[in-house]
Amino acid sequence: MNELSAQPLAGEPAARVLVAGASGFTGALAAAIVWGHPNLQLVAITSRSDAGKRLDSLYSRYRVPLELTELDLDRLEGIDAAIVAYPHGAAAPTVAALRAQGILVVDLSADFRLREMETYERWYGEHGAPDLFGTGVYGLTEIYREQLRGAKLVATPGCYPTASVLALAPLAERGLLADIVVNAMQGTSGYGRSSDDLVHFSAMTENAFPYKTEGHRHRPEIEQELAALGSPAPVTFVPHLLPLDQGELATCFAQTTAPVAKEEVQALYRERYADEPFVTVLDGPPNLRAVRDTNECHVYVTVEERGRVIAFAAIDNIWKGASGQGVQNLNLMLGLDETAGLV
Amino acid sequence: MNELSAQPLAGEPAARVLVAGASGFTGALAAAIVWGHPNLQLVAITSRSDAGKRLDSLYSRYRVPLELTELDLDRLEGIDAAIVAYPHGAAAPTVAALRAQGILVVDLSADFRLREMETYERWYGEHGAPDLFGTGVYGLTEIYREQLRGAKLVATPGCYPTASVLALAPLAERGLLADIVVNAMQGTSGYGRSSDDLVHFSAMTENAFPYKTEGHRHRPEIEQELAALGSPAPVTFVPHLLPLDQGELATCFAQTTAPVAKEEVQALYRERYADEPFVTVLDGPPNLRAVRDTNECHVYVTVEERGRVIAFAAIDNIWKGASGQGVQNLNLMLGLDETAGLV
Amino acid sequence: MNELSAQPLAGEPAARVLVAGASGFTGALAAAIVWGHPNLQLVAITSRSDAGKRLDSLYSRYRVPLELTELDLDRLEGIDAAIVAYPHGAAAPTVAALRAQGILVVDLSADFRLREMETYERWYGEHGAPDLFGTGVYGLTEIYREQLRGAKLVATPGCYPTASVLALAPLAERGLLADIVVNAMQGTSGYGRSSDDLVHFSAMTENAFPYKTEGHRHRPEIEQELAALGSPAPVTFVPHLLPLDQGELATCFAQTTAPVAKEEVQALYRERYADEPFVTVLDGPPNLRAVRDTNECHVYVTVEERGRVIAFAAIDNIWKGASGQGVQNLNLMLGLDETAGLV
Amino acid sequence: MNELSAQPLAGEPAARVLVAGASGFTGALAAAIVWGHPNLQLVAITSRSDAGKRLDSLYSRYRVPLELTELDLDRLEGIDAAIVAYPHGAAAPTVAALRAQGILVVDLSADFRLREMETYERWYGEHGAPDLFGTGVYGLTEIYREQLRGAKLVATPGCYPTASVLALAPLAERGLLADIVVNAMQGTSGYGRSSDDLVHFSAMTENAFPYKTEGHRHRPEIEQELAALGSPAPVTFVPHLLPLDQGELATCFAQTTAPVAKEEVQALYRERYADEPFVTVLDGPPNLRAVRDTNECHVYVTVEERGRVIAFAAIDNIWKGASGQGVQNLNLMLGLDETAGLV
Repeated sequence: MNELSAQPLAGEPAARVLVAGASGFTGALAAAIVWGHPNLQLVAITSRSDAGKRLDSLYSRYRVPLELTELDLDRLEGIDAAIVAYPHGAAAPTVAALRAQGILVVDLSADFRLREMETYERWYGEHGAPDLFGTGVYGLTEIYREQLRGAKLVATPGCYPTASVLALAPLAERGLLADIVVNAMQGTSGYGRSSDDLVHFSAMTENAFPYKTEGHRHRPEIEQELAALGSPAPVTFVPHLLPLDQGELATCFAQTTAPVAKEEVQALYRERYADEPFVTVLDGPPNLRAVRDTNECHVYVTVEERGRVIAFAAIDNIWKGASGQGVQNLNLMLGLDETAGLV
Repeated sequence: MNELSAQPLAGEPAARVLVAGASGFTGALAAAIVWGHPNLQLVAITSRSDAGKRLDSLYSRYRVPLELTELDLDRLEGIDAAIVAYPHGAAAPTVAALRAQGILVVDLSADFRLREMETYERWYGEHGAPDLFGTGVYGLTEIYREQLRGAKLVATPGCYPTASVLALAPLAERGLLADIVVNAMQGTSGYGRSSDDLVHFSAMTENAFPYKTEGHRHRPEIEQELAALGSPAPVTFVPHLLPLDQGELATCFAQTTAPVAKEEVQALYRERYADEPFVTVLDGPPNLRAVRDTNECHVYVTVEERGRVIAFAAIDNIWKGASGQGVQNLNLMLGLDETAGLV
Repeated sequence: MNELSAQPLAGEPAARVLVAGASGFTGALAAAIVWGHPNLQLVAITSRSDAGKRLDSLYSRYRVPLELTELDLDRLEGIDAAIVAYPHGAAAPTVAALRAQGILVVDLSADFRLREMETYERWYGEHGAPDLFGTGVYGLTEIYREQLRGAKLVATPGCYPTASVLALAPLAERGLLADIVVNAMQGTSGYGRSSDDLVHFSAMTENAFPYKTEGHRHRPEIEQELAALGSPAPVTFVPHLLPLDQGELATCFAQTTAPVAKEEVQALYRERYADEPFVTVLDGPPNLRAVRDTNECHVYVTVEERGRVIAFAAIDNIWKGASGQGVQNLNLMLGLDETAGLV
Repeated sequence: MNELSAQPLAGEPAARVLVAGASGFTGALAAAIVWGHPNLQLVAITSRSDAGKRLDSLYSRYRVPLELTELDLDRLEGIDAAIVAYPHGAAAPTVAALRAQGILVVDLSADFRLREMETYERWYGEHGAPDLFGTGVYGLTEIYREQLRGAKLVATPGCYPTASVLALAPLAERGLLADIVVNAMQGTSGYGRSSDDLVHFSAMTENAFPYKTEGHRHRPEIEQELAALGSPAPVTFVPHLLPLDQGELATCFAQTTAPVAKEEVQALYRERYADEPFVTVLDGPPNLRAVRDTNECHVYVTVEERGRVIAFAAIDNIWKGASGQGVQNLNLMLGLDETAGLV
C-alpha cells in the first residue's frame, strides 16, 4: 500500500479503494475520480507494465500523485473495494481473488456482463472464473439501481450497451421494440491506450471508419439487456471510430411492434428519465462536447414520418461508458449518494 | 473575362470554362480542378461577396492565381461551359440564363436533381426556373453515363445521395432492396463556408452530432434514385457532422426482398463496379483518409448473420460528392476522357 | 435581473454577480465559473447580440440555465460585482458606469491594463473612460496579490502577458533579463467567438500559422510588466494560432544581464512559486492538455549550453489567461479564499 | 524484385528505383512519389517489420500496390538508384553496401549530413560507415544544386534544418546573421510511425508541447549550414509538436551584424528565391495548410521596430522536409527536370 502518498480526506472514508490496472485509459480515470471523491480514499493503484511510475507522469491532467505498484494479492489488508480495469478475460481471476478476500468489486471488463456462458465463450473465449459467472449485478445504474444497492460484484456495462440501452430503454420496457439498428461511433479513447498504427494521430486525424463490421461483441450484450427489459428484438450493430478523444454517440433506428406517435414517445422518455441524475432528455439532437468529461447521458428521441423511431444517446465513453458509471455503482454498493464524486 | 491571367494550356482547349460562385468550398475546388485540367481552360471565376479578391488569397492551397469578378451575364462571349456553385434556389435562374446563351452547364445545386416539382417545392421552396425543371441529366456518373455524354445541363447529385446510391446500387438494380436505413456522416466542408458558431474550430473539435433529424432533403433524392434503379423502398436517413474537413461515409442498412448470401452480394458488387474508374470495391470497411482529395468512391458490402445487408461508401464530399463528379460529368458532356483532370 | 432563475446557493452569498458580455467565449466561461462558485451568486448575464437566449443553448457544456438579457444600467440594484467581457475599447464606458454605482469590477478587456495613455492610444485607439485610466490594479495575481485584496477595479491581464510574465518573473524580479524573445501559440478560443473564415474548422484543422507578425498589442503590456518587476528589457513577440480549442504556450528565450546556471535558475523558480496555488514549476517541458479547463500555469525553465535562458509557461488561455484569473482576483477583492470556485 | 507488380511506365525509365525502409512515414511517401513519377520506375520496396504486406494495405491513400519485401543485398541487379529511409545509425551500413554496387543513393537519415565526425558521434553515437563519412552532398537543393547534379550519394537534410536554413539563407549568405533563435513546430508525422503514448490520438488532440528542450540534434546541423553560407552564428533551437499530421513551421529570430531595413530584406529574399521552383516568398506570414502534400517552402521575412529580423518558413515535413526533397535531389542526380514527379 502506498500509505505515504495516500489521499488526504476530511473525516473517515466510506471505503478504502484499490484501482487495479490504473495505467490504462479507464483505470486511470477511475483512479482520478476516486482521488477527487469526497467519501472514498484511493489507497493503491496498480499496473504491471507501468509499476514504479507515478500516475501523474502518465496522465498529468488527472493530477493523481500516487505511484503505480504491481498488484500483490497477499497484501490487500485494509482494502474495502476495488475497481478492476483489466482486459476482458484477464479480469475474471483477479476479480475472484479479490472477492475471496471479501473486497467489493466493480469490474470494468466484460467478464461478468453476459448471462449465458455459451455467448461469453463465443465472443471472448474461455472464462477465467466460471464459478463467479452470473453472480454479478449488471451495472447499468438506471435499470438495475435496486439490485446495485449493497451488491458485492458489479459488472460495468460496455460503453456501447450503455448508450444503446439508455437510448432505447423506455420503449424496450413497454415491449415496443421490433427490429433495431444501432449505428454507433466513438472517439479513440475507446480504442484503449495500447499503441497501434490505427490510433496514431497521423492516421486518425481527418479520418473516420467503421470497424468490426462482421460482428462486435457488444451486440449480444445489447440484445441481452433489451430482452431483459421486455423487447427480445434482433439488433444490427455497427461501430465507427471518430477523430476525437472522449465521446460516444449511439444512433438507434427501431421499428416498433405497434404504431407510436412522436409526441407520445417524447413524453414517455421525459417521464421515464425525469428523476435520473445523469440522464437528460433533450429537445433536439445531442452533441458529444456537452457530455465530455461528465457522467451525463444526453438522450433525444423522434419518430420519422413513416413511423420509425430514431433514438440518440450521447455519453463520454470513459465516464458514463466505463469509469464514471463504475463509481456511480460503487456509490450505490456503499450506500453513498449516487452522484458523489461525479460531475 | 480575366484574359490576362487566364490559364496557360498546351494546345487548343476542349472548352473555355466559367465557374460561378467560386468563393465557396465547392466552387473553389471546381475552379482548382479546372485550373489543373489538361483539356479545359479556366477563363473566369465569379463571386458576389468576394469580387476583387484573388482565389489564391482565399484558398492558398489551390494555387489558382485568378481574380474573382462579379458575374456579368451580358459578357459571356467565348465561354463554352459553366460550373455553377450557387446555393439551392439561387442557382436555377443563372443556369437558365447560361443555357439560353448555349453554354453547357454543370449545376452543383439541388435545383435540377429532383423529378417531381411537388417534392422540390416541399423541400426547397419555389423553383427559380420551372421551364427547365426536369430537363437536366442526373449526374451520378456510374448510373447515367450514357445520358451524360453530350448532355447540355447536368445536375450534380447531392453528396449524401452519391455515397448512398453507390453503396446500394448493385442491389437496387436487382430490385432487392426492401427497407433501408442510411446513417451518414461528413466533415465540416459539407457545411459550407458560411461562418457559423457550429463550425467554429472551438465548437467542432472533439465534437460530433446528428443534425436534420426530423428530415433532410437528401432523403427524397436517395429514394428517387433507388426507385429509378428498381427498388422503390422507403429510406430512413440521418446525417451527422464530424470533426474533420473533407470526407463522407454512408453506412447503409438494408433488408432485402429475398435472402442474400454474403459472398454472393460481394461478388455482385465486384462485378458491377469492375470497370468503374472511380469506384473501388474493398475487401473490408473503408476509411475517409483513403479518399480525401480524390474523386474515388470506396465501397464495402457485407451481410450480417441474420441476413441484413450492410453497405458502406466513402467519398470526399467536395470531390466525388460535388466538384470532382461535376468535372467527371463535364468530361463526358465534352466527349473527353472521363478521368481527365481528376485523381 | 433574472430573479427566477438565479442560482441557488447554500447560505448568504459573498456577492451577487453580473457578467456583462456573457455570450462570448470568456464571458460565458466567467458565467460558468461564477455559477459553480460556492460563495458567489450569478444573478444576471447580459449580451446584446444574444439577448433572449439561454446560455446553455449556446454553451451546453457549461450547464448555466440562465437567460441572457440586454444590460440595463438603470436596473443594477442588488449587484455587488461585475465581470465585464467586452471588446477592447467598448469596455471602458460600461466599466465607468458600473463603478459609478459602486459595483466592484473585474474587466477582462485591455482598457485598464496599460499605464501610459500614449501606449494605449497607439495600440487600441481613443480610450472610452480616460478619467478611470490608470486607476485599476493589474490583475496578474501572483505579482499584485496584495494590491488586489480589496481593490475596486481590476484589469485582467491579456492571456499572452499572463503566460509570458509568469514564465519570466523570477528572473525579471532579480533584474536579470536583458534581451527577450517570446514565441507564443494558442488555440482558436483565443480568436474569439466572432465567426471568420480563419477559424472555420475546415480552414483550421491541419493548419497553424503566425499572425500579427508586424506587432501585437500584447507586446507593450509584457514589456510594461517586466520593467515594473525590474527588467526593462525589449521584447520581441510573435503569436501563432494552433488547431486546438483551449490552451496557450509561451516559449520565452532570454539573454541575461549576468551569467546564470541551470540548476540555480531552476531553484530560483521553485522557490519563487513554492506557495502559489495555481503555478506549478515542472521538472520538464509543459503540455497544454495538462492545464486545459483549469486555472493552472505550468512553468519550466532551463538554460542552454551557451547561457540563454529558455522559459516555458502553459495555461488555458480562457481560464488563467482570462476568466479563471478574473475570478481568482474577484475572490481577493471580496476577501474570499483565492482558490474558491476554481480548479 | 517484384517484377510482376512493377510500375508501368511510358517509355524507358531514367532509373529503376528501390526504396529501402518503405513502411515508415518518409519511406512510404518516397515510394508513392516514385510510383507516380513520370521518369522513374519503382521496382522494389523493402521493410523488415512489414515484409509480406502490400504498401497500400498500410497507406491506402498512397495507392502503391507493391508488396514489401526484405532487403536482400545480394539481389540488387538492375537497380539504378535507392532511397534509404532507415533510422539514424542504421542507414550508414546499408548505404555503403548500395554504393559498393554502384547504386546511386539518396539517404534520408542523418548519417551523412554532418561534416565533423566528433559532432556526429556526440549526437548520434558511433558511425556505421566511417569510410563514407563526409563523401555525400548535403541535399538542400536551393543551396547545393550544382554539386547535386551528378552526385552519387546525397544526404537529405533534416526537416528542421531545411525550413530553418531556407528561412535564413539570404541573410546568412551576406554574413549578416549574428544571434539566432529558431522556434520550430511540426506535426506528428515528424515523430515517425513508431507507436508511442505521446502520439496516440487521445494524447495529442487538443495538445501541443515543446520537446528536446535540453538540446536537439538538428541544432548542430543548422549551425553547420549557416556557417557554410557565411554566418557562423550560434543558434538556439526549440522544437514543438503540434496536433496535426503533416506540416512544419520555423519561426526564426535573428540579430544582425549590421542594421537592416525591412523593405531591403524583403527585396533581398524575393531576389534570392526568384527562380526557385519550390520556394515562394510571401507578402505575409505563411500557413501550414498551403504547403501540405507539396514540396513547396513558403517564406516570409520581416524586421521589427527595433531591428530584429523575424523569418518564417513553412514546409510539409515529410515532403520538402524529407522524401519530396529526396526525389528533387534524385532528379538532379539523374539529370532530370528538378521538378519531375513533384507538386
